[in-house]
Amino acid sequence: MSKVPAQTGEERLIATYFTPLARHPGALGLRDDAAMLTPPSGSDLVLTKDAIVAGVHFFADDAPDAVARRALRVNLSDLAAKGAAPAGFLLALALPDDGDDAWLKGFAAGLGADAEAYGCPLLGGDTVKTPGPLMVSVTALGFVPKGKMVQRRGAKLSDSIIVTGTIGDAALGLVLRRDIEDAARRWKLDEAMRAHLLDRYLLPQPRNVLATLMQTHASAAMDVSDGLAGDLAKLCRASRVSAEIDVTRVPLSNAARAALDADPALVETVLAGGDDYEIVCTVPRVQSDAFLAGAKALGVQATAIGRIEAGEGTRFLRDGEPLSLGKTSFSHF
Amino acid sequence: MSKVPAQTGEERLIATYFTPLARHPGALGLRDDAAMLTPPSGSDLVLTKDAIVAGVHFFADDAPDAVARRALRVNLSDLAAKGAAPAGFLLALALPDDGDDAWLKGFAAGLGADAEAYGCPLLGGDTVKTPGPLMVSVTALGFVPKGKMVQRRGAKLSDSIIVTGTIGDAALGLVLRRDIEDAARRWKLDEAMRAHLLDRYLLPQPRNVLATLMQTHASAAMDVSDGLAGDLAKLCRASRVSAEIDVTRVPLSNAARAALDADPALVETVLAGGDDYEIVCTVPRVQSDAFLAGAKALGVQATAIGRIEAGEGTRFLRDGEPLSLGKTSFSHF
Repeated sequence: MSKVPAQTGEERLIATYFTPLARHPGALGLRDDAAMLTPPSGSDLVLTKDAIVAGVHFFADDAPDAVARRALRVNLSDLAAKGAAPAGFLLALALPDDGDDAWLKGFAAGLGADAEAYGCPLLGGDTVKTPGPLMVSVTALGFVPKGKMVQRRGAKLSDSIIVTGTIGDAALGLVLRRDIEDAARRWKLDEAMRAHLLDRYLLPQPRNVLATLMQTHASAAMDVSDGLAGDLAKLCRASRVSAEIDVTRVPLSNAARAALDADPALVETVLAGGDDYEIVCTVPRVQSDAFLAGAKALGVQATAIGRIEAGEGTRFLRDGEPLSLGKTSFSHF
Repeated sequence: MSKVPAQTGEERLIATYFTPLARHPGALGLRDDAAMLTPPSGSDLVLTKDAIVAGVHFFADDAPDAVARRALRVNLSDLAAKGAAPAGFLLALALPDDGDDAWLKGFAAGLGADAEAYGCPLLGGDTVKTPGPLMVSVTALGFVPKGKMVQRRGAKLSDSIIVTGTIGDAALGLVLRRDIEDAARRWKLDEAMRAHLLDRYLLPQPRNVLATLMQTHASAAMDVSDGLAGDLAKLCRASRVSAEIDVTRVPLSNAARAALDADPALVETVLAGGDDYEIVCTVPRVQSDAFLAGAKALGVQATAIGRIEAGEGTRFLRDGEPLSLGKTSFSHF
């Protein structure tokens, strides 16, 4: 006679760290093969999947709660840009052989805090061992009213181009992270400015609070993850239009402004670096003020930086003069 | 002025290998941040996510089309056990630096063929570089009529326990794969038997054709991925019941029968080895014959192997005598 078998290592790990987070009834306590979700009637499902790998998309020594938050937030950022309300997520976690309990505890704490904060519960997933680096693959689900997902391909002539938050902080934060003393000295940054840029790299701030505003006003949108210049070019290609951007209107933090004043060549890092996780969207001109005011009311800075025109390509102008960017986009490939 | 930027490596890879597979309108040609799916009214969404890692869940030198099929099929198998009709999948692919075009071409071909065969289209995903081994993480989605997902926890006293297909082939196939000459000789297998076991390990055969039958008749179900004994124990724990299995009724292929005749100790590999990707389900006794006949009509062997009883644990009996299994479940942890 077989006894009730002891839990496997994977079962123990899930029960200890992840089951406590899985309070949504459709997660079935992570004790089933699948999760279950009842879509609100009249809604479309929005699905996104972004994976992050240690040493490629984050530093292997980042705090585990920050790794968890980053993995979830880069997906939440996609939902935000599409105007979708988060509904839940699935997690695949590939753990190196040296994955330990302290690390998992921190990871689960960060994951649970953000799942709560963004109203995006853990629904299910898979935990596997890997001889390689840690990898976190998240699939996030959201809902929009039928037909209301904001796509990349809807930008129209004379639409305003709007970005949320500030641009370039995370890319500068990554440079700082790699060589903190040297860059901070060259850029004449004070302690608060250094901390701001480092934090903007470490922890994306997805703009999910804008979901309804995006549905109402945006003709096209995407999240800025691979650099404003390159991502805007993708949006333009999808919409078969071009964009003209006034570089002096691109919103910068005080820290980014200080760095740029110290080293004007950093404009390329600001406009073409990655990891902003802000939204770039196009809004019909007559709705532009309503969008900007709506975002402000929701506590999110939003700035009109240019307009959609005919043709193809993206033109960045500074005081009317074209700015040439050697590199428009960041890619891990 | 910036020109239209050239495609990044990732964009080229996606456009070359995956966009041709993404014919579902909700995939948006893989040119957006997210995919879109309109749920059929009155349906529940069923979600599953299983990841596989080279050297852990498959052999690094497996043919790329087999790796793709395996990654998709292990997820399809979960949907099948839950009675859900496949709706689509998202793919996260972590490629080692030496990922090459020939490999990707084979991978995409296998993925496309199975997406077509199982009616489960590619909706979106993410492609990343990794310094580690290849990893494929799939999230599969299915739909069931509202409230009809077959859970692990519904088994009732006196329900029949039914399994599909044959049990143990894949676990024996894995032993063969590791030491083909020695095992084939010891087990007295002919060429066809060897090929059968190896193929059963390489390529799961998910039973998605049974989805409606599962909804109609099964009180509880799961797919057998970590060994029949251990998985049935999980189902019993979730349902707060016990199971009594007649080992002589567990369905075996001719190849598994030959191996077991040659080495009776292999019974443990057969009952507790992994990778069967069959369904184990419980069906009220009065519906048992209808289920078995329905499966047969759909071309799937299904066999009643025992019944649900009160208490806890799983009892495997051979000619009325209890069989002791040292190990009831396979775990990569």
